[in-house]
Amino acid sequence: MVDAALQNGTAHRESLFEAFARRLPDGRRYGVVVGTGRLLELISEFRFEEAELEWLRANRVVRPETLDWLADYRFRGDVWGYREGEVYFPGSPLLTIQATFAEAVMLETLVLSTLNFDSSVASAAARMVSVALGRPLAEMGSRRTGERSAVAAARAAYIAGFDATSNLEAGRTWGIPTMGTAAHAFTLLHDSEEAAFRAQVEAFGPKTTLLVDTYDIRQGVETAVRVAGTGLGAVRIDSGDLPAVVAGVRDQLDGLGAVDTKITVTSDLDEFTIAGLSGAPVDSYGVGTSVVTGSGSPAAGMVFKLVARRDDAGEWVSVAKASASKASVGGRKNAARRLDSTRTAREELVFIGDGPGGEAEFEAGTSLRPLMVRLMADGVADAAYLGPEGTAAARAHRAEAMQELPIEAFRLGRGDAAIPTTYR
Amino acid sequence: MVDAALQNGTAHRESLFEAFARRLPDGRRYGVVVGTGRLLELISEFRFEEAELEWLRANRVVRPETLDWLADYRFRGDVWGYREGEVYFPGSPLLTIQATFAEAVMLETLVLSTLNFDSSVASAAARMVSVALGRPLAEMGSRRTGERSAVAAARAAYIAGFDATSNLEAGRTWGIPTMGTAAHAFTLLHDSEEAAFRAQVEAFGPKTTLLVDTYDIRQGVETAVRVAGTGLGAVRIDSGDLPAVVAGVRDQLDGLGAVDTKITVTSDLDEFTIAGLSGAPVDSYGVGTSVVTGSGSPAAGMVFKLVARRDDAGEWVSVAKASASKASVGGRKNAARRLDSTRTAREELVFIGDGPGGEAEFEAGTSLRPLMVRLMADGVADAAYLGPEGTAAARAHRAEAMQELPIEAFRLGRGDAAIPTTYR
Repeated sequence: MVDAALQNGTAHRESLFEAFARRLPDGRRYGVVVGTGRLLELISEFRFEEAELEWLRANRVVRPETLDWLADYRFRGDVWGYREGEVYFPGSPLLTIQATFAEAVMLETLVLSTLNFDSSVASAAARMVSVALGRPLAEMGSRRTGERSAVAAARAAYIAGFDATSNLEAGRTWGIPTMGTAAHAFTLLHDSEEAAFRAQVEAFGPKTTLLVDTYDIRQGVETAVRVAGTGLGAVRIDSGDLPAVVAGVRDQLDGLGAVDTKITVTSDLDEFTIAGLSGAPVDSYGVGTSVVTGSGSPAAGMVFKLVARRDDAGEWVSVAKASASKASVGGRKNAARRLDSTRTAREELVFIGDGPGGEAEFEAGTSLRPLMVRLMADGVADAAYLGPEGTAAARAHRAEAMQELPIEAFRLGRGDAAIPTTYR
Repeated sequence: MVDAALQNGTAHRESLFEAFARRLPDGRRYGVVVGTGRLLELISEFRFEEAELEWLRANRVVRPETLDWLADYRFRGDVWGYREGEVYFPGSPLLTIQATFAEAVMLETLVLSTLNFDSSVASAAARMVSVALGRPLAEMGSRRTGERSAVAAARAAYIAGFDATSNLEAGRTWGIPTMGTAAHAFTLLHDSEEAAFRAQVEAFGPKTTLLVDTYDIRQGVETAVRVAGTGLGAVRIDSGDLPAVVAGVRDQLDGLGAVDTKITVTSDLDEFTIAGLSGAPVDSYGVGTSVVTGSGSPAAGMVFKLVARRDDAGEWVSVAKASASKASVGGRKNAARRLDSTRTAREELVFIGDGPGGEAEFEAGTSLRPLMVRLMADGVADAAYLGPEGTAAARAHRAEAMQELPIEAFRLGRGDAAIPTTYR
């Protein structure tokens, strides 16, 4: 596309692209947009290095003039969008990029990979957080997604309200609290379960978490308390998705005098099994596969569409494709969330043009919360959205935005978006 | 785990870990193991750099003695496994790592991330290849998975039989044929569909592929042939999952004299919609979301378990955890596929111990194909499995292995593994 558009000059037409989701994943009531902070860093660094240019040249992928253009490439345009951690609905204009056509279209795959993957994880994670009812959640799914995606998944889950990750690189890069755990292999390495527990307690003290289900859970709990004493920090049950098993371990711990020893549960948990454990005496959860794979929706379904461009006279022209099943809405967008007098979200308003404005039209007692912020100006990202600070801010913003959701949004069953999206 | 095991010396016990899948994804009949070649390169390069060590030190994640051990870390052990591209079944010992406990357990996340993600993509892709009935398939899903996973996904789909990818980095790194396409944005950038088609034909000649469904498909096809002539290479329909739409375009092209113009179809295709188009005049397919997300099974469900270790006397001890729902089989494994006289696979034989051997036990006319090869010796990978050559070899091996599958393996509906796994 860039090769052909550079040849006829249309590559330099100023253009506006928009990333949005036509629908929420499979019966979900809301989504959480994550990936924005990572994306801004990736856009800032996006260059074609000599090895890449050489490969394009050797394989005649583009013309020599286009290679020269790629060699000089860096993004110099503007980006607006929803703040990272914001709740979204179908049609929410999550990210808009204004630049020349060639400069902006070059970023399509990067924009969508980042937003689709990270938002898929965050949207699933947010549901787990809401059913965990305040009990801490640790992300432990690195092994169930690509080795680089694992770091992004840890970040997305944290922004969505998880408390820690087992991914140390995510701790180092994004400032996320990390935690570790002993696997069954550690027990099996030793000559007995008791020897393994003793080694762990010697290394980390009695406040450690002992994995008690390598052999027999009842025997494991007994050994754990005998080795660590009643001050044992916690036991982990990796087959603890059954409420009765957890209740049995609690009774046993209490009977042994280990009344302050906590129970952490891991075992292919998802939002449904976590909800099913809400009445059981679980103190914390570790979640793997389901969170890093978006719990059934591994790609958030976001698309990146040209919505406006200048014509030869310099005038902006709204554009949109017309295919029946995949129509899009052309034009520059702005967005605001309509809140009622209790600050509960009631409507996602997408203004075509430069809106909002016209607030007088709305019912008394309602307010509009603007949703879009400037993320990059002339190719320079706003530092507030980057790095560990941006990640922490996104997590805080997600917590605030979630508080506005109507109670229906927290249903686990399939259904429609919690609030309607209206174009104005 | 490593920190505690270094402290009591068990870290240095020679250990054998095994990666395997307890079950196939959700009703599938077979899996295709991919990721091995990437993994061997990643293991070879696995080091702790100063910035990482400094972060571990500053956050007191491990003791200073363990930091010294990590600073010297490089893998020096042995790896055996199924050849990349091999078909697998529940319990197939896909990868075994023999090294000290600490050296091997350090690789767990890397092993599983790589095998789970890549094999998930390959196992879905192989089903699409078999229902495409020889029509070429292009992988176009980079935007639907993490930005680095996208490169791995392109490679996995290619090994599984896809013909090309839109991911140029996968072309550069792994030697995979690449292709490009014009998006709706390219049409919308121009003042008319005709102007867009003209720009594309001027840049690439009439053998290009024109996207005809930005506005009205019938009008688009007419304009495409008028601009490019009856020698037009192909039209792409991005809403072409309806057989009737494809048939209508074929009739129209033929009526316009463009009898050699091909039709390529893209539109959220998966193995089921591809099968549904088998009677329609489609010439090639482009597949995105479903292939890079494993078509409903985004993680292949592989696990990495300690199966044997030496004791203090230097004797090997088989180990396995006993939890009811997640039991594993201890001991060193070897594996072979039993083929009948027509070279059709009938059984996955997993030998506990050093097997095979004892071939006389098998029925006359059957043969055993050994499945495991040495992948790394003393930390050095066998070069035959690396880089573009290893990728091409894996693709060829997959084609051969698939030919052994019984016809039942190609059912799309849910069911059991195509052949049973037997432990001996």
